[in-house]
Order: sequence, then structure tokens, then C-alpha cells
Amino acid sequence: MPTIALLTDFGARGWFVASVKGVILRIAPQVSIVDISHEIPPQDLESAAFSLVSCYRWFPADTVFVAVVDPGVGSSRKAIAARAGQWFFVGPDNGVLSWVFQKEAPSDIRSLENMQYFLAEVSTTFHGRDIFAPVAAHLGNGVALENFGPQIQQYTRLPFPPAAYGKYTIEGRVIYIDYFGNAITNIGNEALSKLGTRRLNVQVKNLAPFDFGGCYADGRPGIPIAVPGSSGFLEIAVPMGNAAKALGIGRGDAVKVKG
Amino acid sequence: MPTIALLTDFGARGWFVASVKGVILRIAPQVSIVDISHEIPPQDLESAAFSLVSCYRWFPADTVFVAVVDPGVGSSRKAIAARAGQWFFVGPDNGVLSWVFQKEAPSDIRSLENMQYFLAEVSTTFHGRDIFAPVAAHLGNGVALENFGPQIQQYTRLPFPPAAYGKYTIEGRVIYIDYFGNAITNIGNEALSKLGTRRLNVQVKNLAPFDFGGCYADGRPGIPIAVPGSSGFLEIAVPMGNAAKALGIGRGDAVKVKG
Amino acid sequence: MPTIALLTDFGARGWFVASVKGVILRIAPQVSIVDISHEIPPQDLESAAFSLVSCYRWFPADTVFVAVVDPGVGSSRKAIAARAGQWFFVGPDNGVLSWVFQKEAPSDIRSLENMQYFLAEVSTTFHGRDIFAPVAAHLGNGVALENFGPQIQQYTRLPFPPAAYGKYTIEGRVIYIDYFGNAITNIGNEALSKLGTRRLNVQVKNLAPFDFGGCYADGRPGIPIAVPGSSGFLEIAVPMGNAAKALGIGRGDAVKVKG
Repeated sequence: MPTIALLTDFGARGWFVASVKGVILRIAPQVSIVDISHEIPPQDLESAAFSLVSCYRWFPADTVFVAVVDPGVGSSRKAIAARAGQWFFVGPDNGVLSWVFQKEAPSDIRSLENMQYFLAEVSTTFHGRDIFAPVAAHLGNGVALENFGPQIQQYTRLPFPPAAYGKYTIEGRVIYIDYFGNAITNIGNEALSKLGTRRLNVQVKNLAPFDFGGCYADGRPGIPIAVPGSSGFLEIAVPMGNAAKALGIGRGDAVKVKG
Repeated sequence: MPTIALLTDFGARGWFVASVKGVILRIAPQVSIVDISHEIPPQDLESAAFSLVSCYRWFPADTVFVAVVDPGVGSSRKAIAARAGQWFFVGPDNGVLSWVFQKEAPSDIRSLENMQYFLAEVSTTFHGRDIFAPVAAHLGNGVALENFGPQIQQYTRLPFPPAAYGKYTIEGRVIYIDYFGNAITNIGNEALSKLGTRRLNVQVKNLAPFDFGGCYADGRPGIPIAVPGSSGFLEIAVPMGNAAKALGIGRGDAVKVKG
Repeated sequence: MPTIALLTDFGARGWFVASVKGVILRIAPQVSIVDISHEIPPQDLESAAFSLVSCYRWFPADTVFVAVVDPGVGSSRKAIAARAGQWFFVGPDNGVLSWVFQKEAPSDIRSLENMQYFLAEVSTTFHGRDIFAPVAAHLGNGVALENFGPQIQQYTRLPFPPAAYGKYTIEGRVIYIDYFGNAITNIGNEALSKLGTRRLNVQVKNLAPFDFGGCYADGRPGIPIAVPGSSGFLEIAVPMGNAAKALGIGRGDAVKVKG
């Protein structure tokens, strides 16, 4: 059973996601549909790009990912489908797929122009349902990528928030607050090991610095700790607490690591 | 694989929806279960009816829709299952299914009385789990509608909030605020085209009127615009913003379209 | 198709649950995955244990339940998989599974130590993805429980909040507020019938006592009523209203039933 994984900013409360799933199941009744998230803040391309790059690699080969955060729906922005690594990716060409493409160079990108694979009637406001869903379903059915439109070489890239990697320090920032209140940064775990010992010291904004540990349970309840996060980036946690609330930190806040 | 689509006000946080799914999978392990929404405001029949009528048509033929918003659970209100168009619909007879039935005249409605298709023990507070889930699963398994109980002709109708369609103006109201903050009205898209040109002028409450466009991207960031919505009704949006918050509008607010 | 049911405190907004599902589908593409909830308050073992014990029995035989609320992830707490009743249960050995084990004595509990069934690389912060998901998938594939590690006899028990059952009165407390605002107590329905007649009188905190009814619809809109809940426990509702808000009650509040 092929898998189709959905990531949108449609909200989980409305019927929009259900319409997308209905369209998919009508064309490809045997697929397994997985929700990545439908609660991406409206039009927040960075959150969507980061969510996708953080989970795609765990999915089966040939999974079709559909990422629709699409403020330009109905305008002239391209719609694309690509093969990258072992997977397929479908969405608007606005950068939402580009952080994955940095990790997995796409071997084939198509501009979605063959209307045979769209719904018969395409609205101006809901391409998730009318274009991306049917294209994903046909990909899930094994239709070859070349059928969906002409190959393109260029795609829109969203800049990844850069961290400054020095010899003794790394300066980055908070890019995501998760459900636990953990603050995920843009500082890669692999860079931490290059700073030398595990006796690292982490500072957020101008708060008192705190220790780096191996896991949440290395810390003491209520005391901030930095750990190598499961998404591949340094994260700041408060064991048995909520780091974002306890420390008053949010997206964009400066983070400094010292070896 | 038949599809069973669920719409409830049970909330996504609790185990209530999971109980419903467990019951379904025990009887019909091969079905695909799709969530429409479980975050309908408690006992809000209008929101549920509108959600269902906005998405049912995208689903595969023979999909079984289960809509349980059921303030009268345990009372003498009927439970029904119906064939309407290409689909099956199951739920309490309190109007939650009636907006679909306005679009798709039901060819067969049954009063659910054959306890053979219920759970062995039926609680007084959770018919979603004890009656509607097993009936839906048996329908998914191909049990014919006539087995579930006697045919009925009458069903409870929920009035659809009426808009006043004049020659030069249409007066309606906001009936739903979506995750983007877009305000969906009860003014049908097809009526707009009858007003003549696309140079329409839309006013909400006594705010300054604004333009009508073809898609969100026709507008300018931050400036309100009205568009023909993907659900078939006029909606009011603020490109790259939240119309409900920016304009302070909510369900029930008056909307006026002038040609 | 075997079913795998997931209960976590990962939040539905992030990509964490999707990573777990990706891992499962890579190993066991034919399973049906059901979400119980991912919105358990972070690290709230009681809420998770109560959610699981309230719904497991409705699922098909051989369903694999994965319950990951795991403040001790990365520490020395055991990870376990068990057969109890007709089902399998997988999770950390911190009590999250123990309320089910009170109802269904486990016939075989294994300490998860065979790394062959883990992901190749195990992080210190996300055993849901790296250990529990692959183990559940292999169980879903039919791998026998004895392969996952040595049998153990002892497991961590979380105390169930006790109610005091007297001859004429029962004293308990509120343990869960659901999406409707109904307050679920720790007072078992079966104990209510032993108090004699249905003319029971229920008091929360020092508020005015109210009546006991058979179902929500027995009450009048806006007037509090106590009913035998569908989870097996007494619950307090306000028909067409929100009991928790209307009465100002929350988890832990005292409840007294008089016969």
C-alpha cells in the first residue's frame, strides 16, 4: 500500500483536509494517508519546510508527500512534483519543498501542467483539493512523473536561517517551539561534537547560561538543559516543565553555544 | 477498500473517537477511516451540517458518512441511515444530514431499529460508539440498507440560513470562520454571476465596502477582498492576514453584495 | 489488516507523530494506524492511563497499543511490551499501561532489549520513534512477543485515584474534563446501582446537590445532572451546556453521591 503524507495550513477543524482525502481515495482507494500536520500557522512557509525536512526520511520509499502552504494560490506561481531521494514531493513552487531538496537533490522536477491529472473543474482558491490531491493520488497509483508536465531545472529556494559556526562558539536562533515547550534551534547536532567536549555551555538571549546534556532525564526537574534533539538540531528543554514559558523564549531568539 | 468518514463534536483530544474507530475496525477491518472533523463546537448542528455538505461530494462512491452531533442522545429521537446520491449517510435524525439531503434527494431512508447491528450493550450517552459505528461498519461490509430497519419518508430538516437574492443586491450573512480567518457566507457563488459583471462591491456590517476578486492573490496583502469560495459560497478574506480578526467579524454578521 | 493504536503527549501540530507513523509503515505497510490522542497534557501519566483504559476494549483482537508519555526517556526506565487480554501493549514501564493491566492481567510482559527490533540509531530523546514504533510494527507483522527481550514479572503501577464506597454514600473526585465540559469522576457506575434506587443525589464541592438521571436528555437545558458515563464512571453534565465552565469545576474536585 503506497503512503501519501499530507502537510498543510488548512486547520484540522474544517472540512478542507477531508475534501483532499476524499479526492485522493476516489482516485487511489488503496493508499494509506498520513497527516503530518494541518496546523501549520497560516502561510508560514518556514514552519512547513522545517516540519517536512524533520520527518520525511522516516517514511517508506515511494511515499508521496504533499505540502500545501500556498499564499499564492490562483496566481502564476508554479505547481511542482519531484523525485528526490526515495520519495516523491508535491506542492507549490514557493520554497516549501526546498529544505528537503537541500538534503536530497531532486533527480526530476516537473511543472504540473497536464490537466488530465487535475480535477475537471479547478477552483482559484483550493489547489490542494483540485490539483495537488489528484496528482498525488495518480503518483500513488504509479503514474510516471514525466506524465505530469515538462521537466524544470530551477525551483524556488527558501533560505534556511543560518547559524554562525566558529571555532569555539556557535551562534544561532530558536526556529520552532514544540508541544512540550522545547525550543528547537538551527544549530546542527553534528556541529556540537566538533566543538570538542560535551561540557558545553548554552545561552539564550541574555539569560544565565545552562548546561548541555545527553537527554532530558540528565537534567533536574525545572532546570533548563540543552540536548541534541531528535530532529538533528540542538534543543532547549526544561525537564518536567515548559522551556518556552519558563524562560520566556520564542521563535527568533538568539542562542549561543560555547565549547 | 470502502471508506467511512466521521464527523462529530467529540473533540480530538479524548478517547471517544478512538472508541468509535475501534468498534468499526473490529467489524470491518479492511475499511479506510477518514476524519472530517471532531472539533465541531459541542451540539452545533449548523456547523456540522455545513461541514458535511461542503465535502461529501469529493468522496468515493459508497463512502459511508457518519455524522454524530447529538444533543438528544438517549431520548426518543430517531437514528437513521440513508442512501443519497452515490453515498450512505448515518446519524441522528435531528437535521445534521438534512443539508446534504437538500442537494442529494435520498432514495431510501431507514430508521435504525434492528438491534442485531448495534453493540450488544447500548449505553444511554454514547450512540456514536454503540449504534452509529457498528451500523456504519456493517454498511461498509456491504450489508444492504433494508436490513437496518423500516423505511421512513419523513426526516427532520434544519433550515438553511436564507439569503435574500434581489435583482441588484444580495443580502446574506457569515456562517463559518475557517482556520485562515476567512469568513464564509450563505451567498452562493452561482448567484453572484447572475448579478452581472465581476465589478461587485461587498459590505460586511457597516464597514467600508470592498472589492470582489477571482482569487486571494488578486488582492493586496492586508486589504479585504471577497472571492467565490471553494465550498460554493462567497467568502471574505484578507490576503496574508486574518479577515475575522482584522475586520472584527463573526458568525451571523450581515453581508451585502451590490452589482 | 492489523491495527496499531497510538496514544502520546507529542501534540498533533508537530511532525513527531508523523515520524512514528513513517517508521511503522516502513516496517509494516499493511497496518491500519489509529490515533487515540496526541494531546495528552505533557507528561501527564494519569490522563494517558485513563484514556487508554477507557477505549482499549473496543478494538479488534491483536491490536497493538502504543502509549508513549515518557518523562524518563533516555534514563534507565524499562521499555516494555505485553500481552494482556486479546491485545498487545507497548510503552515505557512508568505506569502508563498499568490501569489496563488492572483490568486485563498480562499473560506475558517483555523488557524490550533486543536491539534488532529498534531503529539502527536510537536517539536519547525520542524512543517513540526509535524503539516503540518499530517494536509495534514488528508485533503487527506477527513477530512473537518472546523475541523482543526477557520476560519480566514486575511492572510499575500507577495508583488509581481511590473513591470511598460507603453503604449510603460514595465519595470520589473529578478525574477528567471532556470536550463537552462533562466532568468524569472516579466513581464506578456499578457502585451506583448498589446504593439502591436511581433517586440519587450528587454534590460537587459545596455546590447545591443535583439529580441523577439515565441520560443527558433526561435533564433540562442548563441544569446540572449526573449520569452513568459511557466510560464506566459517573459523570456530571449540563445538558446543552458546559458543566466544567458553568459550575467552575475541574480535575481533583470532590464529588459526593448519596443514596
